[in-house]
Amino acid sequence: MIPKLSTVVIENLTPLVDGGRHPLKRIVGDDLVVEADVFKDGHDLVSALLKWRKQGDVAWNETPMTPLVNDRWHAVCSLFENTTYEYTIEAWGDPFRSWQQEFRKKFEAGVTPLTSETLEGAAIVRAAAQRALLPADKRRLEEIAALIETSEPAQVDATAHWSELEALMIAWADRTFSTEYLPYPQVIVDRERAGFAAWYEFFPRSAEGFPDKGSTFRSCLGRVDDAKAMGFDVVYFPPIHPIGTTHRKGKNNSVICEPDDPGVPYAIGNRHQKCPNGGGHRDVAPELGTLKDFDWLVAQIHQRGMEVALDFALNCSPDHPWVHDHPEWFFKRPDGTMKYAENPPKKYEDVYPLDYQNPNWRELWEELTQVILFWCGHGVKIFRVDNPHTKPVAFWQYLIGKVRATHPDAIFLSEAFTRPKMMKALAKSGFTQSYTYFTWRGNKYELSEYFTELTQTAMAEYFRGNLFTNTPDILPYFLQQGGRPAFMIRAALAATLSPLYGVYSGFELCENAAVPGKEEYLDSEKYQFKGRDWNAPGNIKEFLTRLNRIRRENRALQEYANLRFFHAENDNVLFYGKMTESRDNIILVVVNLDPWNRQDAYIQVPVEAFGWMETDTYQVHDLLWDERYLWHGGRNFVALDPHAKPVHILRVRRWMSREQDFDYYF
Amino acid sequence: MIPKLSTVVIENLTPLVDGGRHPLKRIVGDDLVVEADVFKDGHDLVSALLKWRKQGDVAWNETPMTPLVNDRWHAVCSLFENTTYEYTIEAWGDPFRSWQQEFRKKFEAGVTPLTSETLEGAAIVRAAAQRALLPADKRRLEEIAALIETSEPAQVDATAHWSELEALMIAWADRTFSTEYLPYPQVIVDRERAGFAAWYEFFPRSAEGFPDKGSTFRSCLGRVDDAKAMGFDVVYFPPIHPIGTTHRKGKNNSVICEPDDPGVPYAIGNRHQKCPNGGGHRDVAPELGTLKDFDWLVAQIHQRGMEVALDFALNCSPDHPWVHDHPEWFFKRPDGTMKYAENPPKKYEDVYPLDYQNPNWRELWEELTQVILFWCGHGVKIFRVDNPHTKPVAFWQYLIGKVRATHPDAIFLSEAFTRPKMMKALAKSGFTQSYTYFTWRGNKYELSEYFTELTQTAMAEYFRGNLFTNTPDILPYFLQQGGRPAFMIRAALAATLSPLYGVYSGFELCENAAVPGKEEYLDSEKYQFKGRDWNAPGNIKEFLTRLNRIRRENRALQEYANLRFFHAENDNVLFYGKMTESRDNIILVVVNLDPWNRQDAYIQVPVEAFGWMETDTYQVHDLLWDERYLWHGGRNFVALDPHAKPVHILRVRRWMSREQDFDYYF
Repeated sequence: MIPKLSTVVIENLTPLVDGGRHPLKRIVGDDLVVEADVFKDGHDLVSALLKWRKQGDVAWNETPMTPLVNDRWHAVCSLFENTTYEYTIEAWGDPFRSWQQEFRKKFEAGVTPLTSETLEGAAIVRAAAQRALLPADKRRLEEIAALIETSEPAQVDATAHWSELEALMIAWADRTFSTEYLPYPQVIVDRERAGFAAWYEFFPRSAEGFPDKGSTFRSCLGRVDDAKAMGFDVVYFPPIHPIGTTHRKGKNNSVICEPDDPGVPYAIGNRHQKCPNGGGHRDVAPELGTLKDFDWLVAQIHQRGMEVALDFALNCSPDHPWVHDHPEWFFKRPDGTMKYAENPPKKYEDVYPLDYQNPNWRELWEELTQVILFWCGHGVKIFRVDNPHTKPVAFWQYLIGKVRATHPDAIFLSEAFTRPKMMKALAKSGFTQSYTYFTWRGNKYELSEYFTELTQTAMAEYFRGNLFTNTPDILPYFLQQGGRPAFMIRAALAATLSPLYGVYSGFELCENAAVPGKEEYLDSEKYQFKGRDWNAPGNIKEFLTRLNRIRRENRALQEYANLRFFHAENDNVLFYGKMTESRDNIILVVVNLDPWNRQDAYIQVPVEAFGWMETDTYQVHDLLWDERYLWHGGRNFVALDPHAKPVHILRVRRWMSREQDFDYYF
Repeated sequence: MIPKLSTVVIENLTPLVDGGRHPLKRIVGDDLVVEADVFKDGHDLVSALLKWRKQGDVAWNETPMTPLVNDRWHAVCSLFENTTYEYTIEAWGDPFRSWQQEFRKKFEAGVTPLTSETLEGAAIVRAAAQRALLPADKRRLEEIAALIETSEPAQVDATAHWSELEALMIAWADRTFSTEYLPYPQVIVDRERAGFAAWYEFFPRSAEGFPDKGSTFRSCLGRVDDAKAMGFDVVYFPPIHPIGTTHRKGKNNSVICEPDDPGVPYAIGNRHQKCPNGGGHRDVAPELGTLKDFDWLVAQIHQRGMEVALDFALNCSPDHPWVHDHPEWFFKRPDGTMKYAENPPKKYEDVYPLDYQNPNWRELWEELTQVILFWCGHGVKIFRVDNPHTKPVAFWQYLIGKVRATHPDAIFLSEAFTRPKMMKALAKSGFTQSYTYFTWRGNKYELSEYFTELTQTAMAEYFRGNLFTNTPDILPYFLQQGGRPAFMIRAALAATLSPLYGVYSGFELCENAAVPGKEEYLDSEKYQFKGRDWNAPGNIKEFLTRLNRIRRENRALQEYANLRFFHAENDNVLFYGKMTESRDNIILVVVNLDPWNRQDAYIQVPVEAFGWMETDTYQVHDLLWDERYLWHGGRNFVALDPHAKPVHILRVRRWMSREQDFDYYF
């Protein structure tokens, strides 16, 4: 069987993720720059369009592509809606433009007669008139066809190049024999907060900082307002569901649980408590309040221009209603008892893992999806997913796809700390954002290599790193040992290396008491109530506030793939920058990675990248400390004392030194 | 809808052409080395197979894959048949190996009791027994299950690692929840001559070299035997079909044709001549003989261990029977007359181009395919396709696919000298071999850059360059000006840079009379009879004979992607080499690119790549001139006089300098 006639070759389309096997990611308002090799046999000229549409729509948006060199074509479209788009290229051999070019060649070479060529041109124009659906266009094309038919070659050649005719011929081009790039690649367009946000994580029960009793949803506002004052815009709660009592863990992960120990929020489910929805993933822990209280808190947070992120942790305590109602969803031991979680020889008797391949897997996958939709119904649109790498990637693809179909504004953060290929696969499967190895990238080589990979390779098309300085599970050694300067350094790195970052509460207090020899918090609030003075001396709340203000005021810091590393002549000094495409916002960051000692360095400012010359003078304004310097050319000097100012965040502006300009920058 | 349960992620499969959009190419007996990222969620161990089969077969061949690092898996299969294969990876979470590993961890950590774990293992083995189709395996698995069930942990752990059990568990693995890489990539496996051949092109009518009359098929044997004596194995004929008389071209492409001018073989078709099949592409020109004569010649050539390649030129003279029988296949002018070929302002009134998009295009495409099948029926399996880039790429994909379905041994050489993307697209569409830019790559930078691209990039997977030193259309300036040394230099380059190369007859006589200022032959035999002494003094037949013998005797020169360039401290000296994977055949080539002056150079031999040390001594044997040298380490000296020996082709052998070895190399 001979297939549909394919006339044009369209190849090497970019951008694509894995040759089109997975969608790209963009943010509302972003451009999509598409290029491809487009060509056909013979001498005919080719015309090509970039087409895009919302998935499910029939009609395409279209924009003409322009040839670059070497059969490479280029076009840009802007993606304005929070949805999933598909895009493609349509191209065809263009008889009108081919005729136009051939006619001119012959005319200029003095070929005579050109009668046949003239009639050919008239016929091509007349055929367009027949295709035209607008009567005015149809009439005009017929007029021009008649004019060509009766003209001398010089007039034909001139008429052929009328821009009016060219526009009409593009509008009513013959696309019968056009070729499309197939299958259509997809691009997920997320809302702005998916790409630019500062997260603040706290346990609702710790909101007030009492050492001996838990707070409730109704008493969380103080913490929320504090987060808002610091400039955070996403409040992220670890699981808020009923906590199991069977095998409940005690303080510091002890298997012995005291009667007043509140339990680990990640051991989810307690059907023995009085809960309207059975005591599982659709309920809130009674000690935090009711669903109504939660709704009230969500509304309060929304009123402040912030959002709630919930933890989606698929751990079931032995008391979870699913254990009772759907034992077939869990693993069994040969004696028929339920199998608890293990990482041999470690045992986690307080958690039963779900079996995603159980014979009723379709039912399980659907129920878990409905849990997300339930919370969407309660105003939650951001989900931090716990350990997604221990569930099938295909499951996430299903769940996220289904949720996005009705809630394209839903945001999923993948909390996977695992091998690199799985980290990437989860992002490709649909996760909006991802945890990263930032936590363990400390020195200059590690940071610049890793963030170059994240932002300058194919990963930037689908993987958005959300940089956490710390988590309830991870208190990095650097923070344990580096004191207050270490906290400032890591906060500045997180806040400027990516537009997405987060801190786990206590960070602002520089809390750094660890289980000896481990990257774990001592007396972790995962297992107990925790007393805190949220305004304890030595805190860095003011510093965080400045960081978040600088991020909001500088668009360059709100972009992801614009990160570039520059040279600093000291291995303890990391130097990088970001700028907007139009160069109207240029930020340079210089970080002393040593939390103990002052480090000096000559740094190489990429003035050429800013469009300036080595001889130019410019102003750098340290937005953190409100200090200004005049710098000259590339090589400049910095000195950073970690105990005073471990970091520069410099807004760079051209110094207007010509006498005819008034200095409108100040 | 929830899709089929996908449990394992299989990504970044290599090799693939354009992400799997086009088939790879291999030669019979080649290995296919497949790698991919294979992993799954959680702690379960993964097992993976590489699978391959002839397209159309149901059963797969399988071989286990082995993990490398970082979730990368690896396997190799060998492709023995001249056909099209498809291949894929199948992977699954392996409960047995996961259990085996977990049991050991717990046992070694002293966990007790392990009763439940023991029963689990027995159950896994028993399930395999149920799947086993061989009664002996079934019985043995049941025995082992029973043994495990009743053993103490130490014995269970030991039994779990019996290699007998491991083998049985692989053989009867549970692949219910396995995942396959889709869609299946393809690999075209061509016969040996598709990858290694020396072509000799001559016009049958010029076989005897008479200046005033043409030869016939029956008088071609002298030329064939001469080609065989020189070591060529493909005899390639420009079109042998009836030549049109309307607008026939005269000598040197003149529009005035003398009565005795034989015409251009590329103006095909003459329905006014007496031909059994209408005088078109299924006939031979009566002045060459009959189809029977042609069949006789083909048989003679086959008897000599050689093959015939025919030109497939889709040019129709105004006298072609298709012009009469299928006017709808051609372009019309507005006055209804047939449109001849043009490249404005140039006109080719002796050729009518076909319209591959005409309303009856299916009929046309099918007829052209039948033409190829017709000649396959006459023992021709190699087709050099004239100007394929002026026909739709989709047409070639159709034609070649259809021909290969019944004649997988058919070889198609793409004679496209056009822009790079189209050259590549034709190769991807199915052409076995391709003309290259070799003709215009002369200096060291050009040659090393271009051949690195051909052999060391993704192109090597699908594009096989067949290097022609000259063609009836192209007499390169280098040959026009460089005299006999230039012919030797270009022949040596062509014969050693690629296993596929060709010369157009007259090359061996160093013919270099050109149309002034052009890369065209003066008095080209395309337009006239040509008198020649095939043994004229100054010929390089002996040199070509040596080149072809060296190629046949050295397997390294029969491979394509093993080309590597090395450093020579002189820009007029090109230094490169090829070796077999087992290093049992190592060839180094040193070429003086200057046809006029002696050039000396220190060259850097990559002794480390041969597995030797800088202090080692080794023998280099110049196979062209039968001279031997002892070289030491990397840096060695060469001196090449173009008038004597412009090229070294060196077989490199380790010099056995230990007294206990006798020198078995001599």
